[in-house]
Amino acid sequence: MTHDEIDLERLVKFNSDGLVPAIVQDSTNNEVLMMAWMNLESLRLTLSSGRTWFYSRSRQELWAKGDTSGAIQEVMSLLYDCDGDTLLIKVIQRGSGACHTGNYSCFYRDLIADSKMAS
Amino acid sequence: MTHDEIDLERLVKFNSDGLVPAIVQDSTNNEVLMMAWMNLESLRLTLSSGRTWFYSRSRQELWAKGDTSGAIQEVMSLLYDCDGDTLLIKVIQRGSGACHTGNYSCFYRDLIADSKMAS
Repeated sequence: MTHDEIDLERLVKFNSDGLVPAIVQDSTNNEVLMMAWMNLESLRLTLSSGRTWFYSRSRQELWAKGDTSGAIQEVMSLLYDCDGDTLLIKVIQRGSGACHTGNYSCFYRDLIADSKMAS
Repeated sequence: MTHDEIDLERLVKFNSDGLVPAIVQDSTNNEVLMMAWMNLESLRLTLSSGRTWFYSRSRQELWAKGDTSGAIQEVMSLLYDCDGDTLLIKVIQRGSGACHTGNYSCFYRDLIADSKMAS
């Protein structure tokens, strides 16, 4: 086990499933692009490769963001919160955006507006 | 059951514990302030009161942000992501900041810098 591994496990609190939520933010304008989950291995891969890697809870596997879409995220900084149980990753977003729908951000819908329309 | 209740449960996917992560962002500069969890009741209280309410997993109770600290968060918009399982709330942050440590944001530590220092 390297120093890096020991240290990450001390600094970051993974939940009972071994995961931590990672918020991804565009470093150029601070827009929030997406939220996904990381396990220790995807966090280590993110740090070593300089691009975001996540853990898919549905597929139960690691995935490198942008491998199929080209929407690679280059890591500019990686912050962790006061409780050590949430990550905030500032990136340069390549391609047209972060969302699999084709939108720039995954947060393209307004709950208040949509609630009123539907009720 | 009101239309609002039906609708929120249709639009937002709560996890097996009945919770959804809520990212809170400063609407004035897009800085990410914190991440906390909401259940259906805290989401309804947030929408009806116009300020953030969360659910504390450790204390197992609802809490209104700022009730003890004065650091109230006025909701400007409430977005939900492509999967419907994460919220993004843009707020006006009152008081000195969002974090219980006294920091403006809960994300005041850099994992890469701290890993290198400790190893």
